[in-house]
Amino acid sequence: MKSILVLLLLANTAIAAVDPLPSWNNTAPKKSIVAFVEKVTKPGSQNFVPLKERVATFDNDGTLWSEQPVYFQYYFAFDRIKALAPQHPEWKKKEPFASVLKGDLNGTLASGDKGLMEMFIATQAGMTTDEYEKAVAEWIAKARHPQTKRLYSEMVFQPMLELLAYLHANGFKTYIVSGGSTEFMRPWSEKVYGILPEQVIGSNIKTKFEIRNGKPVIAGLPNIEFVNDNVGKPVGIQNHIGRRPIASFGNSDGDLQMMQWTSAGKGSHLCLYVHHNDATREWAYDRTSNIGRLDKGLDKAPDNGWTVVSMKDDWKVVYPFDKK
Amino acid sequence: MKSILVLLLLANTAIAAVDPLPSWNNTAPKKSIVAFVEKVTKPGSQNFVPLKERVATFDNDGTLWSEQPVYFQYYFAFDRIKALAPQHPEWKKKEPFASVLKGDLNGTLASGDKGLMEMFIATQAGMTTDEYEKAVAEWIAKARHPQTKRLYSEMVFQPMLELLAYLHANGFKTYIVSGGSTEFMRPWSEKVYGILPEQVIGSNIKTKFEIRNGKPVIAGLPNIEFVNDNVGKPVGIQNHIGRRPIASFGNSDGDLQMMQWTSAGKGSHLCLYVHHNDATREWAYDRTSNIGRLDKGLDKAPDNGWTVVSMKDDWKVVYPFDKK
Repeated sequence: MKSILVLLLLANTAIAAVDPLPSWNNTAPKKSIVAFVEKVTKPGSQNFVPLKERVATFDNDGTLWSEQPVYFQYYFAFDRIKALAPQHPEWKKKEPFASVLKGDLNGTLASGDKGLMEMFIATQAGMTTDEYEKAVAEWIAKARHPQTKRLYSEMVFQPMLELLAYLHANGFKTYIVSGGSTEFMRPWSEKVYGILPEQVIGSNIKTKFEIRNGKPVIAGLPNIEFVNDNVGKPVGIQNHIGRRPIASFGNSDGDLQMMQWTSAGKGSHLCLYVHHNDATREWAYDRTSNIGRLDKGLDKAPDNGWTVVSMKDDWKVVYPFDKK
Repeated sequence: MKSILVLLLLANTAIAAVDPLPSWNNTAPKKSIVAFVEKVTKPGSQNFVPLKERVATFDNDGTLWSEQPVYFQYYFAFDRIKALAPQHPEWKKKEPFASVLKGDLNGTLASGDKGLMEMFIATQAGMTTDEYEKAVAEWIAKARHPQTKRLYSEMVFQPMLELLAYLHANGFKTYIVSGGSTEFMRPWSEKVYGILPEQVIGSNIKTKFEIRNGKPVIAGLPNIEFVNDNVGKPVGIQNHIGRRPIASFGNSDGDLQMMQWTSAGKGSHLCLYVHHNDATREWAYDRTSNIGRLDKGLDKAPDNGWTVVSMKDDWKVVYPFDKK
């Protein structure tokens, strides 16, 4: 009996010694994450948070995967436009479609937000949710990033995957809260991040239930319904979850209000910004970037006690394929 | 050792013999519920549904609790209007407010949907989500139904509470999918039904994130954002869950599209209408009622294989307080 006890104790020690965040250097961000998780999960502690209230929200683009030179969903839209072009001869002379068809990224972006919205609507409206899901699933399985030539789903951040797994193991319910569209993320969020479709909160176009060829469908309409970015993020969180997160993770000023909302909660909380400052392993950009601008957030982080992760200094590896 | 085995077997038999739906008569609806649950949860069966996909959606008004003589949320709005009236002298001459203040229910309803929307907006716009939650929680704890004099939260259907518990015990994730407002149901849905706030899908007004007196808040705006009824129900389900339910429960034509959406799924499914035909223990109404009209649904149920529950014949008790 004694030997069994000793074995159990040894096994216990061995489990405790496993590092849940092996791709994080042992610097301040990792320490603040571990301290937070231990604090809120310790029964009897004054910072203890019951299971149901352990809600953590994650931005997607730039926080869980890369977002340069443009958000990956843009590439999906570009590919859809190319596929649909034969049915739209007018696109050859109409921006941003003309630039997309010429493969001119700068020309495409020159149309600004309005042009991009037109693009998203053109590639989604009229399709049923089932058709759109199929198109995304097919694309994500084989489309490759123009620079790295990797699958987009490989360009996720290994340290953040470990963080998600660590939170899941500690009873957290994790949500994606992204400016990207909900229906674009759901087909792969569970496989790639372990985040269920019902825990994906994003932007969306209006949709309509109808009977099409005798079958009930939900079809996209040519209008934006909700932009889940900036001030939209706390609204999306309230609408879908109805609880305030106790932890939020982002990388841009689009995540600022989500962090303010999280920080204003009563108990313990953790807010963390991923700072893209690693031009060698990923990209380096912040205050002046058009994609994923992090400017106000950098100013506000110190006063609010928000953690800022230097990708260069705090992460041992960036992508899973970097691992030895 | 043998005696322990015998004990275990006996215990097992005893557990299996406990009726999970004691308030249901042993008629067709109960049989179809049990047959469905056993079929989709039996490992190896061709109808087996993995845990994650066991999604069941429940209408609230008339399905989980009563809805006569008007939806209970109306009474909350009436009480709010009475409380706010001193700040709105103009309401004395403006419908539907004037009728509400006089306690004239028919006069109030005469304003139609437009008047009711005005009423909801007037009692919610400007309030923060925290303030609204507090107001609902205080009201539900003490407000009483004008006819039964019971707390509204006591006027829930005992057989449906048992059904919820039975589904929970079998790994189902249950959602409320109601025309009522999300923020009205969340403060009590967990306590009363065991349904978490993040699993409540309802109608909602537009809201806005802002910093008010230095504190981040989400405040109601004077516009309806989404009506989660009729064709809105499948849209709300897709938006929030992103999976098709395998079981849906309703009581009115407002639930018809939710059932069509559920029925059109690939695998096994169960759709069930609660038919209010018990004037003695509750209310009797269907094809011509302004509240909870069940007309098309009654016509469509037989062809679609949807179960129709006769409250009178299929339920032993209606309310929990009816139990001996």
